[in-house]
Amino acid sequence: MSCPFAQSPRSTPNRIPKRSSSERDSIYEVIDAAPLCHVGFTQQEQPFVIPTLHARSGDTLLFHGSTQSRLLQAIASGRPICCVFTLLDGIVAARSAMHHSMNYRSVVAFGTGRLLEDEALRQQAFRLTTEKLLPGRWETCRQPNEAEAKATAIAALMIEEATLKQRSGGPNDIESDLSGPFWAGVLPIQTVIGKPIPADDLPPGVEIPSRIASLTTSG
Amino acid sequence: MSCPFAQSPRSTPNRIPKRSSSERDSIYEVIDAAPLCHVGFTQQEQPFVIPTLHARSGDTLLFHGSTQSRLLQAIASGRPICCVFTLLDGIVAARSAMHHSMNYRSVVAFGTGRLLEDEALRQQAFRLTTEKLLPGRWETCRQPNEAEAKATAIAALMIEEATLKQRSGGPNDIESDLSGPFWAGVLPIQTVIGKPIPADDLPPGVEIPSRIASLTTSG
Repeated sequence: MSCPFAQSPRSTPNRIPKRSSSERDSIYEVIDAAPLCHVGFTQQEQPFVIPTLHARSGDTLLFHGSTQSRLLQAIASGRPICCVFTLLDGIVAARSAMHHSMNYRSVVAFGTGRLLEDEALRQQAFRLTTEKLLPGRWETCRQPNEAEAKATAIAALMIEEATLKQRSGGPNDIESDLSGPFWAGVLPIQTVIGKPIPADDLPPGVEIPSRIASLTTSG
Repeated sequence: MSCPFAQSPRSTPNRIPKRSSSERDSIYEVIDAAPLCHVGFTQQEQPFVIPTLHARSGDTLLFHGSTQSRLLQAIASGRPICCVFTLLDGIVAARSAMHHSMNYRSVVAFGTGRLLEDEALRQQAFRLTTEKLLPGRWETCRQPNEAEAKATAIAALMIEEATLKQRSGGPNDIESDLSGPFWAGVLPIQTVIGKPIPADDLPPGVEIPSRIASLTTSG
């Protein structure tokens, strides 16, 4: 078992403790499997939540965007940030309306960010964010030129505390409902990648890289 | 075109205005298609973001949970709330690393909530939240008894402002990359519902309701 993340009252769920964990490797797994995350910050007591792409390097979350992006500026400002990574695994149909639920894995991470300025770390972040989106893509696309790099900000957020919550398995109906007339079970949910659609202006003969083609779920 | 939602600086994206809209019907469509949402609130300057199930009645978002739930209490408290609904439609692979993107639809909604206390409205909310999760389920499950209803809080959040952001279509590479050697295109993303898994303790002969069975994506 890997070293757990720190927890405090803000990162400790107040209900159903058996569904939560601070175990680091399980938390990494959810962060890495989530295609995007939701970043929360506060401006003058007003909460904002913005969906965005992310990458991870150890305990550091990386975000890239225009230097003009309000989200990037908020993350880089050093104010408290809450990042959430959510994977849906199924719809849980119970006999009773009130026991309906979802199977899911979600990580809530707290931390503070900064603007990444070191050029070598920025280059590494460009690579990690591209590879997070499409594994194997960095070597099969044009890498950033100087003007593009200059227009792109990288915010790095150090995870200070993180909690995984998850539910799996079938419905938890009450005893007296079990022999009743109603169906119960789970409808599994899966996110699939379909057949790649080449760009309209792709010159003839330019083939899709095999690692990108292999991401298609149906093979 | 339906009446747009109100907007103010907090709900006006500061970049790429062509990707955003306040058009009400389009916003409803994303809220209704999203299986869950991410709710942001602030406690003593600390932002929190929690994923949760939702339903919608007109401009009101409905959330249900234990009366002990921290999230429900936060929504019902009347403090400012930000709710986000995100649908991923594709991974956009550009020739250049920096033009990689996602196709998505996301709604950011701002509002304030209250505890729903009227028993008829609460009953309606129980039905709406069940039907949002599984259309057609309310009539094919056991409806809440008095003890269950008493243990369940409903928070209603009136949407005051909302903005839809979306991206669709192929990559936007720069002119000088178009004739280059790199593949470009879109990898479509779809969320599918698999074959239902009956509960282990389902008595023999209890059939799945046809509307639930028909939710399976592959038919």
